[in-house]
Amino acid sequence: MKQQQFVVIGLGRFGASLALELMDLGYEVLGIDRDEEVVDELSSQLTHTVTADATDEEVLKSLGIRNFDCGVVAIGNDIQMSILSTILLKELGLKTVVSKAISVLHGRALEKLGVDRVIFPERDMGVRVAHQLVSPNLLDYIEISKEYSIVELKAPSCLEGKSLSELNPRARYGCSIVALQRKQGIIIAPTAMDRLEQGDIMVVIGAKKNLEEFEEMISEE
Amino acid sequence: MKQQQFVVIGLGRFGASLALELMDLGYEVLGIDRDEEVVDELSSQLTHTVTADATDEEVLKSLGIRNFDCGVVAIGNDIQMSILSTILLKELGLKTVVSKAISVLHGRALEKLGVDRVIFPERDMGVRVAHQLVSPNLLDYIEISKEYSIVELKAPSCLEGKSLSELNPRARYGCSIVALQRKQGIIIAPTAMDRLEQGDIMVVIGAKKNLEEFEEMISEE
Amino acid sequence: MKQQQFVVIGLGRFGASLALELMDLGYEVLGIDRDEEVVDELSSQLTHTVTADATDEEVLKSLGIRNFDCGVVAIGNDIQMSILSTILLKELGLKTVVSKAISVLHGRALEKLGVDRVIFPERDMGVRVAHQLVSPNLLDYIEISKEYSIVELKAPSCLEGKSLSELNPRARYGCSIVALQRKQGIIIAPTAMDRLEQGDIMVVIGAKKNLEEFEEMISEE
Amino acid sequence: MKQQQFVVIGLGRFGASLALELMDLGYEVLGIDRDEEVVDELSSQLTHTVTADATDEEVLKSLGIRNFDCGVVAIGNDIQMSILSTILLKELGLKTVVSKAISVLHGRALEKLGVDRVIFPERDMGVRVAHQLVSPNLLDYIEISKEYSIVELKAPSCLEGKSLSELNPRARYGCSIVALQRKQGIIIAPTAMDRLEQGDIMVVIGAKKNLEEFEEMISEE
Amino acid sequence: MKQQQFVVIGLGRFGASLALELMDLGYEVLGIDRDEEVVDELSSQLTHTVTADATDEEVLKSLGIRNFDCGVVAIGNDIQMSILSTILLKELGLKTVVSKAISVLHGRALEKLGVDRVIFPERDMGVRVAHQLVSPNLLDYIEISKEYSIVELKAPSCLEGKSLSELNPRARYGCSIVALQRKQGIIIAPTAMDRLEQGDIMVVIGAKKNLEEFEEMISEE
Amino acid sequence: MKQQQFVVIGLGRFGASLALELMDLGYEVLGIDRDEEVVDELSSQLTHTVTADATDEEVLKSLGIRNFDCGVVAIGNDIQMSILSTILLKELGLKTVVSKAISVLHGRALEKLGVDRVIFPERDMGVRVAHQLVSPNLLDYIEISKEYSIVELKAPSCLEGKSLSELNPRARYGCSIVALQRKQGIIIAPTAMDRLEQGDIMVVIGAKKNLEEFEEMISEE
Amino acid sequence: MKQQQFVVIGLGRFGASLALELMDLGYEVLGIDRDEEVVDELSSQLTHTVTADATDEEVLKSLGIRNFDCGVVAIGNDIQMSILSTILLKELGLKTVVSKAISVLHGRALEKLGVDRVIFPERDMGVRVAHQLVSPNLLDYIEISKEYSIVELKAPSCLEGKSLSELNPRARYGCSIVALQRKQGIIIAPTAMDRLEQGDIMVVIGAKKNLEEFEEMISEE
Amino acid sequence: MKQQQFVVIGLGRFGASLALELMDLGYEVLGIDRDEEVVDELSSQLTHTVTADATDEEVLKSLGIRNFDCGVVAIGNDIQMSILSTILLKELGLKTVVSKAISVLHGRALEKLGVDRVIFPERDMGVRVAHQLVSPNLLDYIEISKEYSIVELKAPSCLEGKSLSELNPRARYGCSIVALQRKQGIIIAPTAMDRLEQGDIMVVIGAKKNLEEFEEMISEE
Repeated sequence: MKQQQFVVIGLGRFGASLALELMDLGYEVLGIDRDEEVVDELSSQLTHTVTADATDEEVLKSLGIRNFDCGVVAIGNDIQMSILSTILLKELGLKTVVSKAISVLHGRALEKLGVDRVIFPERDMGVRVAHQLVSPNLLDYIEISKEYSIVELKAPSCLEGKSLSELNPRARYGCSIVALQRKQGIIIAPTAMDRLEQGDIMVVIGAKKNLEEFEEMISEE
Repeated sequence: MKQQQFVVIGLGRFGASLALELMDLGYEVLGIDRDEEVVDELSSQLTHTVTADATDEEVLKSLGIRNFDCGVVAIGNDIQMSILSTILLKELGLKTVVSKAISVLHGRALEKLGVDRVIFPERDMGVRVAHQLVSPNLLDYIEISKEYSIVELKAPSCLEGKSLSELNPRARYGCSIVALQRKQGIIIAPTAMDRLEQGDIMVVIGAKKNLEEFEEMISEE
Repeated sequence: MKQQQFVVIGLGRFGASLALELMDLGYEVLGIDRDEEVVDELSSQLTHTVTADATDEEVLKSLGIRNFDCGVVAIGNDIQMSILSTILLKELGLKTVVSKAISVLHGRALEKLGVDRVIFPERDMGVRVAHQLVSPNLLDYIEISKEYSIVELKAPSCLEGKSLSELNPRARYGCSIVALQRKQGIIIAPTAMDRLEQGDIMVVIGAKKNLEEFEEMISEE
Repeated sequence: MKQQQFVVIGLGRFGASLALELMDLGYEVLGIDRDEEVVDELSSQLTHTVTADATDEEVLKSLGIRNFDCGVVAIGNDIQMSILSTILLKELGLKTVVSKAISVLHGRALEKLGVDRVIFPERDMGVRVAHQLVSPNLLDYIEISKEYSIVELKAPSCLEGKSLSELNPRARYGCSIVALQRKQGIIIAPTAMDRLEQGDIMVVIGAKKNLEEFEEMISEE
Repeated sequence: MKQQQFVVIGLGRFGASLALELMDLGYEVLGIDRDEEVVDELSSQLTHTVTADATDEEVLKSLGIRNFDCGVVAIGNDIQMSILSTILLKELGLKTVVSKAISVLHGRALEKLGVDRVIFPERDMGVRVAHQLVSPNLLDYIEISKEYSIVELKAPSCLEGKSLSELNPRARYGCSIVALQRKQGIIIAPTAMDRLEQGDIMVVIGAKKNLEEFEEMISEE
Repeated sequence: MKQQQFVVIGLGRFGASLALELMDLGYEVLGIDRDEEVVDELSSQLTHTVTADATDEEVLKSLGIRNFDCGVVAIGNDIQMSILSTILLKELGLKTVVSKAISVLHGRALEKLGVDRVIFPERDMGVRVAHQLVSPNLLDYIEISKEYSIVELKAPSCLEGKSLSELNPRARYGCSIVALQRKQGIIIAPTAMDRLEQGDIMVVIGAKKNLEEFEEMISEE
Repeated sequence: MKQQQFVVIGLGRFGASLALELMDLGYEVLGIDRDEEVVDELSSQLTHTVTADATDEEVLKSLGIRNFDCGVVAIGNDIQMSILSTILLKELGLKTVVSKAISVLHGRALEKLGVDRVIFPERDMGVRVAHQLVSPNLLDYIEISKEYSIVELKAPSCLEGKSLSELNPRARYGCSIVALQRKQGIIIAPTAMDRLEQGDIMVVIGAKKNLEEFEEMISEE
Repeated sequence: MKQQQFVVIGLGRFGASLALELMDLGYEVLGIDRDEEVVDELSSQLTHTVTADATDEEVLKSLGIRNFDCGVVAIGNDIQMSILSTILLKELGLKTVVSKAISVLHGRALEKLGVDRVIFPERDMGVRVAHQLVSPNLLDYIEISKEYSIVELKAPSCLEGKSLSELNPRARYGCSIVALQRKQGIIIAPTAMDRLEQGDIMVVIGAKKNLEEFEEMISEE
């Protein structure tokens, strides 16, 4: 499956980061941007780079874009270019087209044009950072459903040495510690006997409401 | 702990989203931006909003910024304003100052000025989206360490009706299913008897390498 | 049926002319443009005029746009605004949405968004004027199909006094004179006995190829 | 007569469309524009193209413009350039000079300078589209005089199978069907026995007032 | 005849100077300019001043321009405005319309539009100053025909005390001294007995070629 | 004396006209302008032309400006450049430096810097044209002193055939006809017997007040 | 003598600093700048401030500038404004006019206009800082003549405790210590018995060449 | 010690002057500026010059900046560039980094980043010039401490011939004349017998308050 090929249109901060990570993950990436300087800076780090206007159908055809599996339209602020490039990628028959939106209305336009996924990077990152700001021990989290989340929490020093049975989050807060990450390695499904050590990171699952109370408790303790 | 107060400087896409999420989480937020139009649009949704130049020390003092707990400098593209605002927030004595960087060098400058955390929203979001693009079943993930992750995966239709003992990810791929999310609710620490149903979402923990193989397997099957 | 109400977004040369003609035809027209000066100039000539940003959903709602029958997006050069306004009109549920395109790709985008008709005024007018330039007697024409047209031709002075049987276009050029327009009035389906008079305008139907030969003949004669 | 040669100054949307249609009609066209990019795009589709300032008398002379039959000044928005180019074409002695106007005053200036015809493409197209919008079955029309028009109308499905004697437009609405266009071909001067079939297009001539009533009738029926 | 009324459109350096001189000569002047600042500066020095767009027909009508005797279009650099204003003044029926041109082609356009006189102030002033530069004693001159001029020359100190009969320009250079201007007053048609005094200014008439030789002589002597 | 050499800095409408007239008068002219396009257009019509910044001392020195006799700073609108160029010409030791001023204050600055003559072309031309506008028969004039002028007047048709003794301007208006210009040639100091012919141009000298009355008389007659 | 009054034109960084220092020294200062924002910021710190165009003679007169003793033209980058303002101050008869120059040529222009002193703040400060950079112990200096300076030097720690007779700069380097500044106060004309203490600052006078050697010595020691 | 090498970033008026003075003092200087024109002008006067973006880490490394002893960031108005360049110089390990600030806040930012010295050239020069303006005899001064200064004063003509004992500044004003500079040379530590001569410059040390009184006295006398 590693043969999947990506074309990333728009190599601003978001597009460049996405393209470089795809390279890191072992995929081939063609990067396209109108700005020669931007393209030059990435030319040695992506499989291919081209300075081109991605709303020019002939250009996209001559680049063989139709043979790519997935197209990402990561154009920064120009809604017009974003929409026209998206249409061309769809018409060229790419299996997957993902486009970045900068406003709700832009997002609706992209959906109507049939993109497979609309991304709002700044909006989503704003939400994510807000959560981290209000919970000082929160490192990261996944929202599994409207009600449930998994959170990654630093174990506070006051809990060091305590066993999970003492902490007993399931009984007291209705949430479960599914893993403990420590220097020596990960403990999946730790037992009630396992004790928290300095620097431990707890992976906890539960209803959001319960997780919030648990976070507050360990922040205050 | 809900009494914590936030000031968000720069109400672009990232700053606005962060400020609104903080409001949703029940905190008080003061939003500041130079652009009156931007401020007007958010004025009814944040606790307070002010159109002001956040590099003007007198203005920040008159707004009582020193009484806030946490300041977020979410200024979009103007490195100068970002740095000068950050300095003022630090000097006014806020407990926590978090600033958005738009380049590596900008990030280094912010660190030297002593901010508590530097955020690269576009870069981080680019990385996150890259992971989702290469694994069609991947909904979200947390990187626990350089080696371990938790991933949230859609169970493909071909696995419907299979029991976890049949799937046996621990033996075959070295990773564990720590929860199953389905319409009826969440099953934490499912047993080998539990069977995958249509629409199930699996929360899986394991070494990244192992998780990747597991993802590929369920994509191909 | 005269109760139909129109909203015209974009009051440039094309939009203004369209809106004024709709008024002349007895319909109610709401004209919207971002440019206050443009709106002021038309304010006394349209039923209603508003200076507004037609990509602002709240604005369109507050104007009661959903109660209009037909929306025309006649925005000049800003593809982004054209597309976003078109989406809003469609979402507000107008029975008919017609949008002006300025390029082939823009036209394709509008079609994908489900507009009822895409108009290319400059392109169509270019075609129409080209036909008139090459046939000095051609006043106007309708292209009925790829093969057939109706043309409106000035009768050249050299034909004055000739009867239609002398001219006999059906036999000699395979096309029929379906009407003669002269000062005294129109003669529909003129007979072979009717004679051409000074200043007559002939309405002729036929295959394009035949009409072309007929036009050339009367130009040369 | 096909030897007529055209020079088109200004290759925007209107000028380009006009020039291309003239090529299609079999004429030689020299296209001139100040904008190199615009010229490059058309260079393979017109007989000749030149990037030049059409207000520079020496340039026009060196291009041998005086040998062309007809000049079209299709300059978009620059009234000054439009006027100066028009003067030069007139002075170089072209038989026919046609210029595009963007305002009534501009049109008057061009007339005073002696152009053979002033064109207002956006205004005329606005009028034409307005007529089509108010009559859903109207495909196109020619205004023969202030009182009479020919219209091209889709026959509505409710009329399918009806004979023209049943419809009897002449008696009931005072207008005549001069042709029926259907897939199999055109029927010129259809008889009362001819029956409307699915997809038929009627070419109808009559007083405007009568045609309007006829259109309304078939829209409502 | 002093009742003549002037409207001057364009109050730049040339237009302002012209308008002020007309005031000095005892006429009524209405000054119009688009630039409020320019208008304000002259408002107390002209009979009337208005800040207005002189290509707006309604504005000119409402100002009663049709009642003025002479219109001067002194617009600086905007050929379009110059031409459109000129047309309006002509159409409003002013007896005399004089317009400033900034290029030969502009001048030709103005002539075609029927202006009574085209002025090239910078060009004419350039010519005039050139003549003064090459003849240090030349104060001013009138070109009566292609061959004859009148010149106003400072009498050089070396000629002081000489009688006109000694100087004898008619015999030696073919040109005549028609007047002598000195502090005490003017001597029209001076006699051969009159002697040049210090500071005398000679008004000399003759063929250009002869005048040139005379000028050179008195420069060298 | 024809060996005098001129350098003209600033080749706008005034400077170019001045430089070309100097060429016509048989002098050598070096033209300098910052704008390459402007220089190119004049390069074949002046002795030498250079595209250069005339405030760069090294450039002026390398061009050997110190060897020129007269420098004209004809820079259009940039007071700074005008002043700095003027200083350099003065410092390089040119015998004569003449500079164009665009405002009274600019003129005072130039005088303080020691220029030999300050020219206000637009102002002076405005004054000159004003005089011509108010006297329809006035072709040109020289102001000899505050009180006396010479004027060049078209003889109106009503005076044709009249002898100068009949006209008797000296007795009736206190001014003298010093010359008559007609197609056949000039009559200097015409006698009382000479009769005015069609198309004659009168050169009249007198007190301004008297000349004005004479002009009015011949305009009305 | 404290009654002297200053007007400072141009309130940029240099002008503002100068004006504020004059206030500190007890003088009355009128500050003038075109930029309202700049003026507002200083309005409470100077005796008077005005937002005005300092090249408008009427404005300067109405402000009573002629009654001020000294005018400083501290205009930043606009040579034209600097020159015209300077002329006006001179013409208004101020006793002293000091102007800032930004280039050598600008400086020459100001001198020709008769200013009392031309200042080159950036150039002079560049020279001063260069000296401090090359001598790490050098705090400040005065250049008394081309050959002699006074310098203010930090005494390096290696010299602590040494008596001036041991150091003996006069004999060894030809320069004299005229004062010692230490926390307790200044010692003017210290004797050979005085010993250097920690933190002492030496004021040394001598030939530049000698001072340089002395500085190097104490840097190395 | 003359081997010290300097890099100066930003070659505006201040930076250029500083770099040229360092060259004069015998040091090697590398000058860097973004503006090619600025660099060209200095290329022959500095050891090395480069047109480069000084916020590009790779560029600075490739120029071997780490081998320089002292870096001066003299960037004019761009706070962002100033800060980022300063960080890079610090990170590259230069022994000394000196940066120019244009505002108090900018200065604080630079200090936080650890620069060795912040310079405010315009502010400091404004202060220095203010002192000279209020004391007509003051040529220069050094502020030794908050209380003491050394001043360089022209001896007024009224003091010529007086001996220092007559003047007796120590007794009457509490300040000492430490040197007399006259054409023949400098007199260090002049005695009470020395008499002031025409053109003498006195170097005086004392408390500021005392010096002020002394200055006033010699101004009035």
